[in-house]
Amino acid sequence: MPTTPAPAPFTADDYRARMARAARSAADAGLAGVLVAPGPDLVYLTGYQPTAITERLTVLVLAAGQDPVLVVPTLEAPDAAHAAGAAALTLRDWTDGKDPYAVTAPLLDVDGRFGVSDNAWAMHLLGLQKELPGTSYVALTEALPMLRAVKDAHELARLEAAGAAADEAYGEIVKVRFAGRKETEVAADLAALLMKYGHSQVDFTVVGSGPNGANPHHEAGDRTIERGDMVVLDFGGLKHGYGSDTTRTVHVGEPSAAEQRVHDVVREAQQAGFEAVKPGVACQDVDRAARAVIADAGYGEYFIHRTGHGIGVTTHEPPYMIEGEERPLVLGMCFSIEPGIYLPGRFGVRIEDIVTVTDDGGRRLNNTDRAMAIVE
Amino acid sequence: MPTTPAPAPFTADDYRARMARAARSAADAGLAGVLVAPGPDLVYLTGYQPTAITERLTVLVLAAGQDPVLVVPTLEAPDAAHAAGAAALTLRDWTDGKDPYAVTAPLLDVDGRFGVSDNAWAMHLLGLQKELPGTSYVALTEALPMLRAVKDAHELARLEAAGAAADEAYGEIVKVRFAGRKETEVAADLAALLMKYGHSQVDFTVVGSGPNGANPHHEAGDRTIERGDMVVLDFGGLKHGYGSDTTRTVHVGEPSAAEQRVHDVVREAQQAGFEAVKPGVACQDVDRAARAVIADAGYGEYFIHRTGHGIGVTTHEPPYMIEGEERPLVLGMCFSIEPGIYLPGRFGVRIEDIVTVTDDGGRRLNNTDRAMAIVE
Repeated sequence: MPTTPAPAPFTADDYRARMARAARSAADAGLAGVLVAPGPDLVYLTGYQPTAITERLTVLVLAAGQDPVLVVPTLEAPDAAHAAGAAALTLRDWTDGKDPYAVTAPLLDVDGRFGVSDNAWAMHLLGLQKELPGTSYVALTEALPMLRAVKDAHELARLEAAGAAADEAYGEIVKVRFAGRKETEVAADLAALLMKYGHSQVDFTVVGSGPNGANPHHEAGDRTIERGDMVVLDFGGLKHGYGSDTTRTVHVGEPSAAEQRVHDVVREAQQAGFEAVKPGVACQDVDRAARAVIADAGYGEYFIHRTGHGIGVTTHEPPYMIEGEERPLVLGMCFSIEPGIYLPGRFGVRIEDIVTVTDDGGRRLNNTDRAMAIVE
Repeated sequence: MPTTPAPAPFTADDYRARMARAARSAADAGLAGVLVAPGPDLVYLTGYQPTAITERLTVLVLAAGQDPVLVVPTLEAPDAAHAAGAAALTLRDWTDGKDPYAVTAPLLDVDGRFGVSDNAWAMHLLGLQKELPGTSYVALTEALPMLRAVKDAHELARLEAAGAAADEAYGEIVKVRFAGRKETEVAADLAALLMKYGHSQVDFTVVGSGPNGANPHHEAGDRTIERGDMVVLDFGGLKHGYGSDTTRTVHVGEPSAAEQRVHDVVREAQQAGFEAVKPGVACQDVDRAARAVIADAGYGEYFIHRTGHGIGVTTHEPPYMIEGEERPLVLGMCFSIEPGIYLPGRFGVRIEDIVTVTDDGGRRLNNTDRAMAIVE
């Protein structure tokens, strides 16, 4: 098993730079600031992840010309103080029984418009709206959709390592026995392989055999995989804090001509999406390129999801490769290209790679064979 | 190892009754309805838990005189249709690329006031506020704080089973070796014991030894436990979908007189909180009863959190035993009583039981000895 050294941790200076850039971007977008909730935005900007997300308000307040302040419950303050980015911000704690919105309000312009983390709790947003009726809010993904979308070299290295680990896992999973085993057993193998190759967290191990593959969000169930099944394998998680997410569709024994045909169409669609990638192209054009291949082959109505999503400290984030997303691809963005065809009651096929935008076009971070592997 | 039969699953009728009660409670509170997000509210009301919580809108709309409707992403609709409560509601799905708020809006009064799950994403609340500017919203915990607080007999049986399992785990953990092992090793033992006694999910296994015990939200770290350490053990998770949460503070070898004194004060405070429990008493009076003992003993400034929280399908929910919570205890409520004293740099002591409200006063769902156990 190949071992690669862990990347150097991000430093307080890294987080300081990210927070400063977020505050500048907010000002450029006409916002008074950004309110960041626990979750991927906070991890990205500060390195801080509360051990549990509770009902108690934790919020990072960023505004141009103001030092970053992290409002935290008193009993979580010691943990927050140990975050890698803590040296680049000020902690302001509040004790149970106090009004956390009253503690936060003095940090905000009373009539400002603020970007707020998509996943901030509605309860907290309502608390701030009530405390400061003159303020207004917009979801961070809408206001600053590309806040985390462009990866720097250190982030790209982590995504590459995660992709390579997922490739190693795939290389081994096609050698295990499928026929006669439950989906959940193969899923457990996949999870173990992701961990073996350095993932700290497995987010999903989809094993969709036969008709289960026709439900794109089926995970893995009690169904026993049979000879003759098409099997969708979609798996990923976090390694060194950055995501992997790849899909291959394999077949137990030789496929029929019809199965091979559907797989060929999806593979061609995935390639078309990939070839559409270059700086300046609208995200929706990647979706359109992949979708056109499937539609032209007569399967348009069976491709029932968008073509892709960004990836970074989470496995689902902007940019989205979807009709209507007119924003352009930018050098350093990383996202999935994952068209599929889902034939209800029969089977599904999906093929997915993570791709990054380079000057010359797309570069795949997954590099295993996209041809349909035959498994036993 | 004792095995008890799993309780009968909740049925569509159970969920139908819960949804009807929620809609009626909302109407009684002057609300046009309730918007329920994935998470504990949705589990409680429908039995549905998406396999992953994503950025895609899933929301249950409840209003008096209207059948429950669950808005879901198309690709999650097959999973939602399999939820135990699905037969008691209508699914309305929306496809990637459509505006999910426009799909939801026709279900809402255009100038209504709605309760919304605390943990609904801010992004979705902002989407609805924008789509229907005449609507207004209030956090569900504020509008209908006791929606899930009163447990019926089937729920209480589950909480009792979870508490009994936690007691079994504690009975074994005091027999393991502490001195010379890392906190994380004892935490792993605790997690394994919770699973052994039927938990499906471990939410926390705090092992706070020596000075680490003085941080009430310390989980477990690399510190090697030493002879002479006080060790806070706070552990819980879900069994049959309902929570356990108990704390005992043990000592490695014989305690000093000062350590024993602090433990005695906390134990007395916990007992005082317990004895304050009866129907009609304000939640804050449970907090006051426990806090008074600690303050009288001169440790008031070292008890830095509320006395307790409700428990059910989550391990933290209303009712809260906290100063300012004037709502009364009601028969069937279940919550923790967990005072503590935290001496920075030295040690901490916390003692916690889950307690339910009966006609006669409180009844503990944890029944292990609260005296300080001496471990090796």
